[in-house]
Amino acid sequence: IRKLVLPVEEYVNGVAQGNRMVLSRAITLIESNNSDHFAKAQNVLQQLLPRTGKALRIGITGVPGAGKSTMIEALGNMLCNMGHKIAVLTVDPTSSVTKGSILGDKTRMGTLSRNQNAFIRPSPAGGTLGGVARKSRETMLMCEAAGYDIIIIETVGVGQSEITVRSMVDFFMLVVLTGAGDELQGIKKGIMELADAIVINKADGDNLLKAKVSRGEYERMIEYIRPATEGWQTHAYLCSAIKKTGLKELWKVIEIFTKMTKEKGSFQKRRENQLLDWTYSMIDEHLHNLFFDDPVITGRMPEVRQSVLTGKISPTQAVAELINL
Amino acid sequence: IRKLVLPVEEYVNGVAQGNRMVLSRAITLIESNNSDHFAKAQNVLQQLLPRTGKALRIGITGVPGAGKSTMIEALGNMLCNMGHKIAVLTVDPTSSVTKGSILGDKTRMGTLSRNQNAFIRPSPAGGTLGGVARKSRETMLMCEAAGYDIIIIETVGVGQSEITVRSMVDFFMLVVLTGAGDELQGIKKGIMELADAIVINKADGDNLLKAKVSRGEYERMIEYIRPATEGWQTHAYLCSAIKKTGLKELWKVIEIFTKMTKEKGSFQKRRENQLLDWTYSMIDEHLHNLFFDDPVITGRMPEVRQSVLTGKISPTQAVAELINL
Repeated sequence: IRKLVLPVEEYVNGVAQGNRMVLSRAITLIESNNSDHFAKAQNVLQQLLPRTGKALRIGITGVPGAGKSTMIEALGNMLCNMGHKIAVLTVDPTSSVTKGSILGDKTRMGTLSRNQNAFIRPSPAGGTLGGVARKSRETMLMCEAAGYDIIIIETVGVGQSEITVRSMVDFFMLVVLTGAGDELQGIKKGIMELADAIVINKADGDNLLKAKVSRGEYERMIEYIRPATEGWQTHAYLCSAIKKTGLKELWKVIEIFTKMTKEKGSFQKRRENQLLDWTYSMIDEHLHNLFFDDPVITGRMPEVRQSVLTGKISPTQAVAELINL
Repeated sequence: IRKLVLPVEEYVNGVAQGNRMVLSRAITLIESNNSDHFAKAQNVLQQLLPRTGKALRIGITGVPGAGKSTMIEALGNMLCNMGHKIAVLTVDPTSSVTKGSILGDKTRMGTLSRNQNAFIRPSPAGGTLGGVARKSRETMLMCEAAGYDIIIIETVGVGQSEITVRSMVDFFMLVVLTGAGDELQGIKKGIMELADAIVINKADGDNLLKAKVSRGEYERMIEYIRPATEGWQTHAYLCSAIKKTGLKELWKVIEIFTKMTKEKGSFQKRRENQLLDWTYSMIDEHLHNLFFDDPVITGRMPEVRQSVLTGKISPTQAVAELINL
């Protein structure tokens, strides 16, 4: 019975009423690769669209071990206590997750998962990054329709996943560890340029002094990097998810960011660009797949590839041949 | 008479014999947007392909005023004197150049342009970066077929043009000015990550001390950046194009790079990936253009765009509608 697909109205009404069980099942519908489910999910989403877009969307990335989960849990509990409703999603294109990992995620964020104002949902399993991105974006919209006013999207930082998450959120932060120099090298290239804040976690006890040195190093690096958001200067902040210090200050930074970008119009502008970029990239992806899934192309490809590699034909000729098939 | 299009054999034989006039006209054919010319150019290229691929391909970028032209001229003359034949190409997607700029380029590189072993050709005019990239790649192949054994490709660094040039060359260098700190901020983000060498130009006279400080700064920055070429450590080098110092040393670095990457197989591997990436990106570009140039799509697009922006439909629905039209 739990696996039964509900009628469209039940999804729409249940999500609109903030029913967590129905929300969960609506997301399962979105994540399904069955084409009937796809059509139904789109129908549900269509009706819920007017209820979306009001949440603040926050992305979080960081090297493994930087304490992203602990941080999300501490931040999430604080925000719940302030009266917010928080949804936490994960984007992980490498995930080959079954139901087991939901437990995994809930264990990772034990206290938050038991909070009635928090909703935690791991990444949809497998598939291309494009597919995961589509599902995650629609899951985010579902959560917004269900009344969650802050969406936190965590990414594991594999491949292009940070760029995908950056393209879904209003505010993006990079969580790093204390200790200067060495740790910087572990940070993926290009990531600092996406961040609206660099949060140095575990800045407590014996670590505090090292953390302050790190902050100086990061501030120095940031000077050489174009800000991720026009008119906003990215800075490095100290925080301890374990000791629960620096979290209020971090939230204050996010509030100032939101207020400022809304006043300047860059908040809305980014959202519009995100919608259009999403649309155009999905079109290109569809066209790519339609082309390369075509049996005629699939059949010709190995030979054409070989001809290009051995210099028998130029890429331009290869393309002309394939397109005119 | 000079504007007459030649028979295919005359292009093929002329280029193969290293006839500069015929080479020029073959490149003009490649740059033409006329579809008859396109077919003919592809035919010429097809026959010349076996003669291509043996040159060393070097890309050069840098902030305006860093002295790229002076540097190319000094390096080019030195290499010509060593018995090499040098072709210098420019990639500039913003160029709205007519014949006038050929003079402009030749004036810029006065002594090199008069060298019988050098061939200078500016960027094809206008068009998309994709179009300019295709034409520049094929121009490079033509020059190789004409016997030029070192191809230098300069980019003005607008938009994505550095990434395009990086995808065409074996070795990529960034030319910068002396003076630490301030200048670093003028460098486009992500560019250092593409470079196999950072060349600090104008390291002469009163500037020499400042240049050495700059080198230290760049070396420090490089530590935090993943090398552009696997197994090769990018470094910063001092040079003065005017005083002609550091050029022999720079060429030595390029020779070591070439030897090492050829031994390790990464040289050939990069070339193969470049060919395949070029092919696939041209396919995606063609599909994109075929789709968006379709009058049915063009007609529907403004409304769909508006529906997405106002939240009437989701991007997924927009795409489904457009693809199924």
